[in-house]
Amino acid sequence: VRLTILPGDGIGPEVTDAAISVLTAVAPDAGLSLAIDRCPFGGAGIDATGNPLPEQTLKSCVSADAILLGAVGGPKYDEAARHQGAPRPEQGLLGLRKELELFANLRPSKLFEGLEAASPLRRDIVADTDILIVRELTGGVYFGDHREGTDVASDIMPYSREEVDRVARVAFEAAKGRNGRLTSVDKANVLATSRLWRAVVDDVAKDYPTVTVDHVLVDAMAMHLVTKPASFDVVVTENLFGDILSDELSAIVGSIGLAPSASLGTPDTPGLFEPIHGSAPDIAGQGIANPIGTILSAAMLLRHGLKADAAAERIETAVSTVLKQGLRTKDLGGDADTAAATSAILAAL
Amino acid sequence: VRLTILPGDGIGPEVTDAAISVLTAVAPDAGLSLAIDRCPFGGAGIDATGNPLPEQTLKSCVSADAILLGAVGGPKYDEAARHQGAPRPEQGLLGLRKELELFANLRPSKLFEGLEAASPLRRDIVADTDILIVRELTGGVYFGDHREGTDVASDIMPYSREEVDRVARVAFEAAKGRNGRLTSVDKANVLATSRLWRAVVDDVAKDYPTVTVDHVLVDAMAMHLVTKPASFDVVVTENLFGDILSDELSAIVGSIGLAPSASLGTPDTPGLFEPIHGSAPDIAGQGIANPIGTILSAAMLLRHGLKADAAAERIETAVSTVLKQGLRTKDLGGDADTAAATSAILAAL
Ligand SMILES: CC(C)[C@H](C(=O)O)[C@@H](O)C(=O)O
Ligand SMILES: CC(C)[C@H](C(=O)O)[C@@H](O)C(=O)O
Repeated sequence: VRLTILPGDGIGPEVTDAAISVLTAVAPDAGLSLAIDRCPFGGAGIDATGNPLPEQTLKSCVSADAILLGAVGGPKYDEAARHQGAPRPEQGLLGLRKELELFANLRPSKLFEGLEAASPLRRDIVADTDILIVRELTGGVYFGDHREGTDVASDIMPYSREEVDRVARVAFEAAKGRNGRLTSVDKANVLATSRLWRAVVDDVAKDYPTVTVDHVLVDAMAMHLVTKPASFDVVVTENLFGDILSDELSAIVGSIGLAPSASLGTPDTPGLFEPIHGSAPDIAGQGIANPIGTILSAAMLLRHGLKADAAAERIETAVSTVLKQGLRTKDLGGDADTAAATSAILAAL
Repeated sequence: VRLTILPGDGIGPEVTDAAISVLTAVAPDAGLSLAIDRCPFGGAGIDATGNPLPEQTLKSCVSADAILLGAVGGPKYDEAARHQGAPRPEQGLLGLRKELELFANLRPSKLFEGLEAASPLRRDIVADTDILIVRELTGGVYFGDHREGTDVASDIMPYSREEVDRVARVAFEAAKGRNGRLTSVDKANVLATSRLWRAVVDDVAKDYPTVTVDHVLVDAMAMHLVTKPASFDVVVTENLFGDILSDELSAIVGSIGLAPSASLGTPDTPGLFEPIHGSAPDIAGQGIANPIGTILSAAMLLRHGLKADAAAERIETAVSTVLKQGLRTKDLGGDADTAAATSAILAAL
């Protein structure tokens, strides 16, 4: 199988290297032979070609079976974008999502055994939290017209029935395979797109009689995630709300460095798998980044991208094991570096 | 002085009554004689006139010195809006904000002494949290064109330099009077309005050399509020982000029933003061709602609306005292009802 690796910027190269070594370790038993193509992307794409999504990189992605991404961005590129009108690394990411129509972003967040103390929440509140957020990823205000201006500016938030329908189905399917509860988040008391969103979700619900659906306003949901995170199962929401709520949630379970994500399109386009953390320029190149978010993203890649469920589970079990045994990288208050964390996981496989 | 009271829906009438009795108690010593005009608004406005912001109500508000609001909304009105195209109670609130140009929403959130255990966060994380969120309230996606539709829909998020400038100045002034730190929240890596927002905030910053400014992306801010709430002082952000983050924050400090707000326009328009909680239809009419959010909103009304700072402080001190003494309404795990909580505060004045 062909994997395109987009190391990206900052700690991206370090954490993708760690994940590749884990992928390489589980591949033979899964009957997979990996052909790996590393391509410049984000800031690295800008450095190499002036374009955050170089043509060659896009080509490689399009013909891959799955894509693993590290992280993009950094202050150097922000400065250049602001003051010299240079492209932003993030444009590469948005461009790739759009080119491949990766409309469903899956963000699982749960409390890891042994890591309860990493959550900033009281243990009685956060215990048993296990939520899958399904974020719409190629619509909404991210992809409507942006009118730049120094006196007036505007952004358009558009949604079509079809865009809502397809991501809602992904969420209902996921809920069916989990605890059968779906929470749809919108701002229907203010936004026209949210009223459309709510109507379409209710329509799709008719096809999933075993799933119970609740509609919650985004401001209320931002509260509920803090006060009663354990009461949710699957959450589906539009692009911008999903960006905010999924980051809030990963902070709640205390695992910003551990959280993976999958961005999926239609069954015949390659999915994009990436940790939710950023490029962390402050610690880049020091070999101390937590590789687990990327390693768990590689597990999602095996499951959703290559249908290699057993190999995915092997990785997830190995990660649980080492965390239970007390392995802690710096972000979790320990002193394991990237290499030590990766070796421990390889040993536990 | 003329006060317009908008009891609104659900528990609104109960909590505004409680606040009026407190206002009435402190008025004489503050040299204030109160002329109170209660007007239908929100769902109650729809019931009375078919309009959530009846003409008479708007007239009363316009000529008032300050406005105190309970809460609006309820499932009955949601149903009617969805299925019979009836107006929504919330439209009254949005209409009033716009008519009076109440562009700056002040949402103070701090941990009350004695109530540390009401926060869902670990005490070591939440201790010393004391944040003022300044939310832009009359711009952005709330007030851009909404295109309704069953196949496609869209909302427009517009901002002008002037809109950002005036709310930024409110935030800088507030920061100057507090700890001199301002965090401006946007999504400048995606939105044109956020790039304008950031540029204007930086321009205004030049007039406030003693205030330090940070720019934080909204998704990162949703995390930081959970992981390090004590590290912020004043936060300024646009309408939708402010809606989400201020509710998240009030859940974090554990005081949804205690949190007040002030919505301010130019110095010569009356401000609108309201608790941040909703109309809580499930407990309406039972006399058990927590009146403290509205009573603290009345204190903000005295301070910002009537320049009666001493009276405002008397109320705030009385509330702190009764909470320190252990008074707890039902939402805080106690059994004090609305009347008992109000009497305790009146006694402590
Ligand atoms: C980098 C940025 C454009 C991106 C987003 O907002 O979607 C990121 O925050 C994410 O959540 O993947
Ligand atoms: C009722 C609703 C329209 C309102 C808003 O979103 O502004 C409320 O949530 C608030 O924060 O005051």
